[in-house]
Amino acid sequence: MAEAPCISFLSDYGHRDEFVGVCHGVIARRCPSVRVIDITHEVPRHDVRTGALILRDALAFMPPGVHLAVVDPEVGAAGQHARRAVAMLAADERHTLVGPDNGLLALAAEQLGGIVQAVDIGRSPERLQPVSATFHGRDIFAPVAGALADGVALAALGEPLPVGELRPLRLPSAHAADGALVAHVLRSDRFGNLILDVPHALLSAAELRLGEALTVRAAGRVHPARYASTFADVAPGELLLYEDAQRSAALAVNRGSAAEHLGVSRDEEIVVRRP
Amino acid sequence: MAEAPCISFLSDYGHRDEFVGVCHGVIARRCPSVRVIDITHEVPRHDVRTGALILRDALAFMPPGVHLAVVDPEVGAAGQHARRAVAMLAADERHTLVGPDNGLLALAAEQLGGIVQAVDIGRSPERLQPVSATFHGRDIFAPVAGALADGVALAALGEPLPVGELRPLRLPSAHAADGALVAHVLRSDRFGNLILDVPHALLSAAELRLGEALTVRAAGRVHPARYASTFADVAPGELLLYEDAQRSAALAVNRGSAAEHLGVSRDEEIVVRRP
Amino acid sequence: MAEAPCISFLSDYGHRDEFVGVCHGVIARRCPSVRVIDITHEVPRHDVRTGALILRDALAFMPPGVHLAVVDPEVGAAGQHARRAVAMLAADERHTLVGPDNGLLALAAEQLGGIVQAVDIGRSPERLQPVSATFHGRDIFAPVAGALADGVALAALGEPLPVGELRPLRLPSAHAADGALVAHVLRSDRFGNLILDVPHALLSAAELRLGEALTVRAAGRVHPARYASTFADVAPGELLLYEDAQRSAALAVNRGSAAEHLGVSRDEEIVVRRP
Repeated sequence: MAEAPCISFLSDYGHRDEFVGVCHGVIARRCPSVRVIDITHEVPRHDVRTGALILRDALAFMPPGVHLAVVDPEVGAAGQHARRAVAMLAADERHTLVGPDNGLLALAAEQLGGIVQAVDIGRSPERLQPVSATFHGRDIFAPVAGALADGVALAALGEPLPVGELRPLRLPSAHAADGALVAHVLRSDRFGNLILDVPHALLSAAELRLGEALTVRAAGRVHPARYASTFADVAPGELLLYEDAQRSAALAVNRGSAAEHLGVSRDEEIVVRRP
Repeated sequence: MAEAPCISFLSDYGHRDEFVGVCHGVIARRCPSVRVIDITHEVPRHDVRTGALILRDALAFMPPGVHLAVVDPEVGAAGQHARRAVAMLAADERHTLVGPDNGLLALAAEQLGGIVQAVDIGRSPERLQPVSATFHGRDIFAPVAGALADGVALAALGEPLPVGELRPLRLPSAHAADGALVAHVLRSDRFGNLILDVPHALLSAAELRLGEALTVRAAGRVHPARYASTFADVAPGELLLYEDAQRSAALAVNRGSAAEHLGVSRDEEIVVRRP
Repeated sequence: MAEAPCISFLSDYGHRDEFVGVCHGVIARRCPSVRVIDITHEVPRHDVRTGALILRDALAFMPPGVHLAVVDPEVGAAGQHARRAVAMLAADERHTLVGPDNGLLALAAEQLGGIVQAVDIGRSPERLQPVSATFHGRDIFAPVAGALADGVALAALGEPLPVGELRPLRLPSAHAADGALVAHVLRSDRFGNLILDVPHALLSAAELRLGEALTVRAAGRVHPARYASTFADVAPGELLLYEDAQRSAALAVNRGSAAEHLGVSRDEEIVVRRP
């Protein structure tokens, strides 16, 4: 028996309403054999960048197939605020991405080695009509994802779109300067851990030793910290810099919240140095 | 291969405890091949009407099959507070509804064209014994839903119940008066959008033009608003009246909360008129 | 067709981030035919005991198979704070448990009649490498659970571990004294109901009559209460003692929160007596 097709699904719909369930229903009606994996639906409302980062980070652990993502502040808008609805095929030809063309899919696309084919699905033959102005997850994105999972070719799902017209997403960029690491907060997680824009290579180049004392400057104040491999390596309440599960540098407080401890949020500059 | 049977599931159990998971387990033991679609489990605690509205609205997008709903403030009560536990077959003979007979299923039943057969499942042969006084989702509703999904006939699941004895649910009713629309808040969603009791036909009859300025009276105060098709059509912070994804009138604030902006909640009167 | 293998999954990962979704992805890649039932992922952060109680209580309603649980404050720690990662087979040979060896699995193991075989999976051949220091759910526990579901023998998943070395979990213990029941709060649920350490047998021995007036001493104050079978048997706002869905004694307030009403939390002593 062939494996069931798989759709992974991320959104900012939350769980309080029926939005996620309705999309699951639409998918199940279009492709009854599909397996849907919910990455998360608690992306902060309208926070395209956090959605893009989570999607990119989760992708490596998802089965190949369709990746459906909806964080869509401009849903239904016309004119200058309009955004396209898109479906696209990654270079490895095993992954497709479906969602609004507002940057949400851009980091995942990079991670998959780039996009080789894209279509505008705003008027897809698969859409549910009448298309509402406010719930394209239900009316456009979910049915197109279901059709892809069911084996429909990408080209049949919308109008061809030059790959070069897909909207990119810019991220801040950390650098080393005068022996310090000048970084930024990309996002925080449920535990108040702060994920920085410091990938494995840049962190390794800093040659920090496990257990080494550091200082962290954030929001105009300097805090003592320690370089460690995991939370329990420092005392409760203590700040640590560590390589997180995505191999990026992150800040945490053992059994506490680094976001609260430092009083910082997204994009804020963080300077890490030896005392 | 035949399609897997499908159960959609709505409740006020929330996700903090094991209630939803335990019901999933009970269903999977009774009918291992079933697919369960969670509509939502964050219906406000004991809020039968909001549950009924969400179930009705979600139903059109669910695969045919069993629809299990549990919002059950009177669970286990005896005497005057008692409510029946029921399973019922819709007129189209493709949908069954399972849950407490407290109005929760009434709007879905209407939406499906009415009920043609009902049984009282309080002492169903499928129930898990001893039946607890507080968790009929686990002990009565989930096993009955699982049995229906597994192909057991409705008549075998309980005592026959005259359809006329099923409990209805009354909703407020909007009307047009002196060029104004006198409406009520049916429920709010996660984003603070307020869903009104104004269906597509009544809204169309008002002949509003997109972009038109309106006033909204709520809680004794009058607010400026605009008729628009989607959030991004008005400025951030601005109030809009729009036709929502269910084709009902609704109020929203672009990138804000209409519920907070107007300071109103359920059943409150909302008067919309031209300035 | 054989039934799909089943994994039940409990954690404190919450739904705000991608942690749960990523574990689902890892499982689906390792064992595409598996069904995963989420028990709950909202165990309070790092609260091993609440996780252990929920897992024990939910287990009886889950299909036989693999039970994966992750509440893991010491994840990745070395030295004195280190904990083992384990997989183990229950006496009935139909259930396996996977998770950190910190007591989280201990009550479930008892419930299943004890453990007959255990392995240390910290360096399992199934682990995802490089293993992160902070996300063993993804890198160790999920892939091992997926392998078990896929039919891999326990012995192939890690190093043999003497069953006697598995870490137990101690609970408080209620007793009867001078006609009173001296109990403790084991945990609370979403509704503020307080679950006590009073199993069915001890509660029965107290020979309370339904409707009987009681007093409840908690946090130095005495409150009137009533013994009842369900919430709606007392007036809104009234405190009741009842036998919960697990057949343990519990305290609730009809349409309110016993946790707030009594101002108590975990382990607090509760003395129930006739006035």
